[in-house]
Amino acid sequence: MQLMTARGNLFIVSAPSGAGKSSLISALLRDQPVDMQVSVSHTTRQPRPGEENGQHYHFVNQDEFKSLIADGAFFEWAEVFGNYYGTSRVTIEQTLAQGIDVFLDIDWQGAQQVKELMPESIGVFILPPSKTELERRLTGRGQDTAEVIAGRMAQAVSEMSHYNEYDFVIVNDDFDKALADLLAIIRSQRLTSASQIHTQNGMIKDLLAG
Amino acid sequence: MQLMTARGNLFIVSAPSGAGKSSLISALLRDQPVDMQVSVSHTTRQPRPGEENGQHYHFVNQDEFKSLIADGAFFEWAEVFGNYYGTSRVTIEQTLAQGIDVFLDIDWQGAQQVKELMPESIGVFILPPSKTELERRLTGRGQDTAEVIAGRMAQAVSEMSHYNEYDFVIVNDDFDKALADLLAIIRSQRLTSASQIHTQNGMIKDLLAG
Repeated sequence: MQLMTARGNLFIVSAPSGAGKSSLISALLRDQPVDMQVSVSHTTRQPRPGEENGQHYHFVNQDEFKSLIADGAFFEWAEVFGNYYGTSRVTIEQTLAQGIDVFLDIDWQGAQQVKELMPESIGVFILPPSKTELERRLTGRGQDTAEVIAGRMAQAVSEMSHYNEYDFVIVNDDFDKALADLLAIIRSQRLTSASQIHTQNGMIKDLLAG
Repeated sequence: MQLMTARGNLFIVSAPSGAGKSSLISALLRDQPVDMQVSVSHTTRQPRPGEENGQHYHFVNQDEFKSLIADGAFFEWAEVFGNYYGTSRVTIEQTLAQGIDVFLDIDWQGAQQVKELMPESIGVFILPPSKTELERRLTGRGQDTAEVIAGRMAQAVSEMSHYNEYDFVIVNDDFDKALADLLAIIRSQRLTSASQIHTQNGMIKDLLAG
């Protein structure tokens, strides 16, 4: 494997529910690539059975969490039912510094915040292939009322209305094709001049010395 | 195949000689993909045996060429030993309008001109893997003098000094890897929001209608 001296890229991945975002991210990380990680949130809630610290969440106590807030460590944080949740900018920066690409699975509001704080982050929006298919996916197993389904649909439309705030848009019609699209975006972002100037720094200096 | 309503992308590909640019472009077009073409220049010189009109060059007479100049049809043109050569912006635009990606094989000076006239064009610079390997490739079959080789090397260094004016940089160490890099860049550029808004226009309108 090539020595990674380049900073990793931060990818913001958003989608309406039913677009297959989670499956795509899982497939991406299935073989545990050394140079890709999904961002792990901090929380003060108790671990559930099977949840591991550092993998599902960074589990911290309230004092630790509040101290992180005070340090400005979070991109964003929220209190939900008495528990705190946050996305640590510091943790992400440390991971990026190791040359690892980080995937941030957040909605359009979180995406706007992160993009403002880190303009070099790369936004990827996943769309379902059609309205009919989205309705089918959101209908689930036929156990929900028409109102519940209409509510999900409205929420999906609201999320999708922000698709053009992202750098890239993938239509998840054929899963393998969508995964290949995502991989192409990741690969190409390591090939930008800005990335290569770091990755290939020594070699380029040597070449230009003539 | 998916209906291509999107405009194709214009890729400017530059490299010092010895970087393997021509082999990469040939490999890219080997299977004659319907959605990729290398740009074909116009010239007033006579076709050589085996050269076909529209494939190797667009062969035109001097009156036709001068009329194209007058129409502002060219990105750039030059007279070399009494023959005219030019890159037709109009021809490229017509090809892009069909949803076909066009590859323009030009040096850094031509690249600057095209980028100025068409800022949405995408620059890709190919670098050799090391100075040693570049020297080996430029030495050729050992039939040239040290001066001739030094001249080639100086020219290569001069071309390479512009690598950071390009959007992407590919290091051609392993040929298959470099080709995969190029394909990833091409694929990802069809996935930008700007591209997808056109390609997926009808579908997106339908989705957002809720």
